[in-house]
Amino acid sequence: MSTGRVAAVCGGVGGAKLADGLLRTLPRGALGVIVNTGDDFEHLGLRISPDIDTVLYTLSGLANPDTGWGRRDETWTFMRALEALGGETWFRLGDGDLATHVERTRRVAAGEPLSVVVADIAHRLGIPACVLPMTDGGLRTRVLTDEGLIDFQDYFVRRQCRPRVREIRFEGAAACRPAARIAALLAEPGLEAIVICPSNPYLSVDPVLAVPGMRELLQATGVPIIAVSPLIAGTAVKGPTAKIMGELGKPISAAEVAHHYEGLIDGFVLDRRDEAVVSQIRVPVLLSCTLMATTDDRRRVAIDTMRLARQLAGHCEQVWR
Amino acid sequence: MSTGRVAAVCGGVGGAKLADGLLRTLPRGALGVIVNTGDDFEHLGLRISPDIDTVLYTLSGLANPDTGWGRRDETWTFMRALEALGGETWFRLGDGDLATHVERTRRVAAGEPLSVVVADIAHRLGIPACVLPMTDGGLRTRVLTDEGLIDFQDYFVRRQCRPRVREIRFEGAAACRPAARIAALLAEPGLEAIVICPSNPYLSVDPVLAVPGMRELLQATGVPIIAVSPLIAGTAVKGPTAKIMGELGKPISAAEVAHHYEGLIDGFVLDRRDEAVVSQIRVPVLLSCTLMATTDDRRRVAIDTMRLARQLAGHCEQVWR
Repeated sequence: MSTGRVAAVCGGVGGAKLADGLLRTLPRGALGVIVNTGDDFEHLGLRISPDIDTVLYTLSGLANPDTGWGRRDETWTFMRALEALGGETWFRLGDGDLATHVERTRRVAAGEPLSVVVADIAHRLGIPACVLPMTDGGLRTRVLTDEGLIDFQDYFVRRQCRPRVREIRFEGAAACRPAARIAALLAEPGLEAIVICPSNPYLSVDPVLAVPGMRELLQATGVPIIAVSPLIAGTAVKGPTAKIMGELGKPISAAEVAHHYEGLIDGFVLDRRDEAVVSQIRVPVLLSCTLMATTDDRRRVAIDTMRLARQLAGHCEQVWR
Repeated sequence: MSTGRVAAVCGGVGGAKLADGLLRTLPRGALGVIVNTGDDFEHLGLRISPDIDTVLYTLSGLANPDTGWGRRDETWTFMRALEALGGETWFRLGDGDLATHVERTRRVAAGEPLSVVVADIAHRLGIPACVLPMTDGGLRTRVLTDEGLIDFQDYFVRRQCRPRVREIRFEGAAACRPAARIAALLAEPGLEAIVICPSNPYLSVDPVLAVPGMRELLQATGVPIIAVSPLIAGTAVKGPTAKIMGELGKPISAAEVAHHYEGLIDGFVLDRRDEAVVSQIRVPVLLSCTLMATTDDRRRVAIDTMRLARQLAGHCEQVWR
């Protein structure tokens, strides 16, 4: 195994699983994860960072394996008590999860950049990787739907992705820049690849790429940039990726995801079940089994992804397609 | 039983128990409770009102009978998770208790007066009494000790009342006024008595009386004002009342508590075990068994207190002393 370092770009569940696979297969300390914060919102006076927390909990082994969000061995006393007080309960906050929100809110309010707070929480949770929000700024994803322009969590959690999506906007993007530590992460010697994890391209990865300067930072590294398809057998494992592609008038296909990242990526990993669309993809591809039901699956997809990256970097002679 | 109304002034544990006794013995809707907020503080970004919450939990039957603070059937997942994140854990916040703090913090930050929020929480918890903070303003109790001038919760919880008290200050008192609903509560027809509950006179009742205009509001009612001694057999049931009296150079005696309230109270209820000091007290007294270990005890002290109030109002011919 190379001792090379990897920077992963991800959103929530699916992306976090591949980040975990990379963490388990790369040398200790070799992984950095740049996480979407377009979904962040203020709720009950707390600063909530859903994708950051999914990554933190997944990489620390605290994630709830059944829900895809929140913590394992969670209790729900707070939520029941809040309901009795007439508080808002549509966004479920477990008792242990609350500690993350309260501590982050307190520290950000005291003036610490989000990226410093998140890196520290990752350290406290024993995660041997650098976890960074894409920006310390206030980019917020909003969804223009047939029910109007709505906040991301309103769309995603409260309305359970039911409204038809017409357009996705990243409000406040222009005033943002990549979190300071991202440039440092990408500039450290030994970077071997950048991996765009199998998160929703439109809702989870695009906000990261919408941060002014982010694309340039990624591309300036000169290392292979590999995306992993979030679609398997032409549909999404979890979440609204396929539904949104349809609503946006796009073909619902792994090839379309590869097209979406064209100009950024150097290689694409997709599931064997999507082999039929390989001919439509204009970058080198690797076929894998990308469903990540188990920890071994996460390791396998990570290893396959790194194999393609190394092939593209010239470590091997041919790209397997 | 008269249908007269009663306004109780109280702090935390002991005071809340008598308020509960009054609630259980007075007609439904006849009780108003004016609660100390000098102990309030901001912790972890949350607005915490310890005495208010003790009263709310006691009157709603949610109180933890073992601790004197917090809720029964509580879980502690938040606290354990916060500890893992390196957060401050010296002030224990249960998972259910957190809902009260989060909801209150959110609503006060949104501009609602504390008194409106507290009255609403009391209603939500099914408390058939009017619970009011003494003020919507920012009076804060600080304690000048041999270790310097320290915040109340620092003294009370973190240092467990160990420093020697030299002086107790009510910072910000001058800018406060009684919460608007207090004047309305006291002006409603049918008020029969005001009860100063057996809370710490210096730390819990004095801050209420330090709110400019509060004494005048209480006295303008013209009804008997009765205090109940927090000392039993010359010592405090719980908390630092006796220790503080000693440190302030006062005699540690129920009579001293009566002297402390002189000019305000019309009658004083003390425990039979303190009968020896009755001759030192310059207002009419009633001897009772004021230890409130059980619900029946709370009822008994409430009934005895109201008996003295009614005697003083001329409903009976003589004061039993």
